[in-house]
Amino acid sequence: MIPNCDSTTIVIFGATGDLTYRKLIPALYNNYRKERLTECSHIVGFARRDWDDDTFRNRLKEGVVAFIDDDLDEAQWEAFAAMLTYFRGNLDHAGDFEKLAGYLDEIEDGPADRLYYLATSPSFYGPASEYLGQAGLANQRNGARTLVVEKPFGRDFGSAMELNEQIHSAFDESQVYRIDHYLGKETAQNILFFRFANTIFEPVWNRRYIDNIQITVAESVDVGDRAGYYDKAGVMRDMFQNHLLQLLALVTMEPPASLDADAIRNEKAKVLGAIQPLALEDTVRAQYAGYREADGVADDSQTPTYAALKLFINNWRWKGVPFYLRSGKAMPEKTSEISVQFQAPPDIMFSLNEQDGFTPNTLSICVQPDEGMHLKFEAKVPDLNESRSVDMDFHYRDAFKGVSLPDAYERLLLDAIRGDASLFARSDEIKIAWKLIDPIIQGWEAKDTPPLATYEPDSWGPAEAEALVARAGHEWWLGCGHENGE
Amino acid sequence: MIPNCDSTTIVIFGATGDLTYRKLIPALYNNYRKERLTECSHIVGFARRDWDDDTFRNRLKEGVVAFIDDDLDEAQWEAFAAMLTYFRGNLDHAGDFEKLAGYLDEIEDGPADRLYYLATSPSFYGPASEYLGQAGLANQRNGARTLVVEKPFGRDFGSAMELNEQIHSAFDESQVYRIDHYLGKETAQNILFFRFANTIFEPVWNRRYIDNIQITVAESVDVGDRAGYYDKAGVMRDMFQNHLLQLLALVTMEPPASLDADAIRNEKAKVLGAIQPLALEDTVRAQYAGYREADGVADDSQTPTYAALKLFINNWRWKGVPFYLRSGKAMPEKTSEISVQFQAPPDIMFSLNEQDGFTPNTLSICVQPDEGMHLKFEAKVPDLNESRSVDMDFHYRDAFKGVSLPDAYERLLLDAIRGDASLFARSDEIKIAWKLIDPIIQGWEAKDTPPLATYEPDSWGPAEAEALVARAGHEWWLGCGHENGE
Repeated sequence: MIPNCDSTTIVIFGATGDLTYRKLIPALYNNYRKERLTECSHIVGFARRDWDDDTFRNRLKEGVVAFIDDDLDEAQWEAFAAMLTYFRGNLDHAGDFEKLAGYLDEIEDGPADRLYYLATSPSFYGPASEYLGQAGLANQRNGARTLVVEKPFGRDFGSAMELNEQIHSAFDESQVYRIDHYLGKETAQNILFFRFANTIFEPVWNRRYIDNIQITVAESVDVGDRAGYYDKAGVMRDMFQNHLLQLLALVTMEPPASLDADAIRNEKAKVLGAIQPLALEDTVRAQYAGYREADGVADDSQTPTYAALKLFINNWRWKGVPFYLRSGKAMPEKTSEISVQFQAPPDIMFSLNEQDGFTPNTLSICVQPDEGMHLKFEAKVPDLNESRSVDMDFHYRDAFKGVSLPDAYERLLLDAIRGDASLFARSDEIKIAWKLIDPIIQGWEAKDTPPLATYEPDSWGPAEAEALVARAGHEWWLGCGHENGE
Repeated sequence: MIPNCDSTTIVIFGATGDLTYRKLIPALYNNYRKERLTECSHIVGFARRDWDDDTFRNRLKEGVVAFIDDDLDEAQWEAFAAMLTYFRGNLDHAGDFEKLAGYLDEIEDGPADRLYYLATSPSFYGPASEYLGQAGLANQRNGARTLVVEKPFGRDFGSAMELNEQIHSAFDESQVYRIDHYLGKETAQNILFFRFANTIFEPVWNRRYIDNIQITVAESVDVGDRAGYYDKAGVMRDMFQNHLLQLLALVTMEPPASLDADAIRNEKAKVLGAIQPLALEDTVRAQYAGYREADGVADDSQTPTYAALKLFINNWRWKGVPFYLRSGKAMPEKTSEISVQFQAPPDIMFSLNEQDGFTPNTLSICVQPDEGMHLKFEAKVPDLNESRSVDMDFHYRDAFKGVSLPDAYERLLLDAIRGDASLFARSDEIKIAWKLIDPIIQGWEAKDTPPLATYEPDSWGPAEAEALVARAGHEWWLGCGHENGE
């Protein structure tokens, strides 16, 4: 897969942080083990602490031991660790970027591609990009220069546009990779395969056959020690603007002309752009009881830890189909799933099981934790002339035994290194997403509409969310093999 | 389920035979255990042998012990056995039917429904029906009089029509239940539930989305000690005229207006009537090597033990879709399955696994032995940007744990007792089936076209059958969880 020893340099800003330790280095190490990253690569950690290469390597080794699936092969680690170096620098100091430029030229053996990973606090995304540009580090004369930006990308439409401007002052849009690790998950990627490598789903994938589509991204944890950050963000910025809308786009987009990054992102932007502006009555915001007691949370915090939305997509395929999106913290289980509920048959001529009644066909795409597909359909109850819902299942782990599902970062980092931007959000997608989300947050804050609801920790959200879907005769649905906690 | 103790009398002709022993009495016993047959019923065995009630009961007890799923409850058996009586009679003697009439009047406590089951050699179906009529036993003044006729129903169009005439001389068509035990199998019945209680399959269940449909009914046994009968019948009469065409009708029929017997049978007759007369070039006949050595088989027998057909249905839904039907003895496995192969996507934009290539979506309806559904679809290979076929499964035994699947006869007998003819073939269906099958058998015999092929025992049939499907670029497909033996 790696023909000649291409030299790629990966510079991680915020290299002493948690993301580097838990995700980025284990992901790079896995890519190295799979021979997808050559040993001519350089991985440079940029951070403020007074570390040297060895401190850096030892710290990262712990992370690799903790976060890869199998035992560490010492020899392999040594070879990998040889590529790791530490560069002490301050994200605030333009001068440190100049020094970094010299350092990189020095360690690289001639022209090399470079990937700059901003694993820093969001406040540095803009300035660091500008400093990179000022230091000539964005210039592509001697190889590709790629900038990977972590989420959140802005905290509203204005700040996202401002951040774009700062980044674009140094980098062209084609150089910018905005990461959304949800898109790196196998099941998220599989949505496109599922829809477009098969012929039996696409014909019913539209308003004529689908009754409603639901996306649930539930976290079982509460805000924990992220409360300080979280209280300024809230669930809309933290989950909806990125993950949920991205999943929605994958499920609803038209077939792209190819799998090229731009073909895919054109379709995603197109469908996101067709979402009808949301009415505040079609939103629910809620906070779990006890949230305000967390350290770093204001006593009168209005920050929602849960939200539910009902939205419509105004195009030929989806007009009139309600999409229900919900996400929250402190829920009974960690789960991310998309449920496509089909319409009931026009005529039900079978006897129904009295207890269960009739369940329309539902396809659940399980993004995590148990990645797979569940199709609920009606079958005859043996020995009775009755129909009952049964499940047809597919689980990644069963179908691909022995293949360990790579962490999302493993895939995304490799794609960024290879220059495939398909799984990264383009600036127009971000823009459209904020245009949808912004008015909701503003409406909530300015008009106090709807009022902030409360839900019990370990529940599936407030009664208001049930009411939101019940208005159109629907129910929240969980189809990925857990108890239906509704 | 049984409100008051209705008295039903079941008279089995051929009561000392294998079918009664292995199937009918165990089925009736199971219905009794499930309280679907009241203890006021009578089960009368009619046969020539010099048995008495006790001989009869003891013999049948052995069968019940051998063929029911769990241990025999002695008390329950005794209660059931009390309903069993033996009537010695000769199917050739009109007088014995007169005597039977008297006997039945005597044991019945006033008016009762009666079901006459012809578990005899086919040569008696006509005469016995006539004798029943002559003895007044078909007359419905004192309750329903139902005639159940085993297969084969005629050996060609002419003899089937003649048999119909003999039967109709005594019984109205509405009284006649022609049994095809394939239709009593859970999965066969489930085909209608699957198609019409779900909304996601029906929209793609037509020529626009389906590439071809295959029906395989394979037996692993050879002719064994049925050779004498079999050599006069052959696979077309034994399997195609009934089982395969019935399965075909269930898979291809339009939605019936209701689940009433006539609504269903109207649709079945309609679609069978739309089958385009077959060209002999679209047929394959074959005999397994060694068949002629079996006892009772002529040395120069031309009887096919295997056949394959390609046929078309000329209606809006199916025009142009090839249907491949095959059945044979001495095959590697016993399996009955229907595979619906969908068209390939219009554009394949994904990389394919080199080894496997592209497999279009295939839905396999598994009739036996492992009753269930398999859906083959494309999924992304984890950690690669490749698509590969995976299986989504549904197995009756998993979905309905603890529910034992009733034997086909249990259901069919109960339906006949209750007067539900949905799962029985009506005379017009039989007529249409013979009209299709007759010219093939005649063509084979008269024109020796195509020549009789040979296949090895334990193979999936002759090369000619592969060629038949290969002409349109197809392959035989087995999707119910076995090794694909092609």
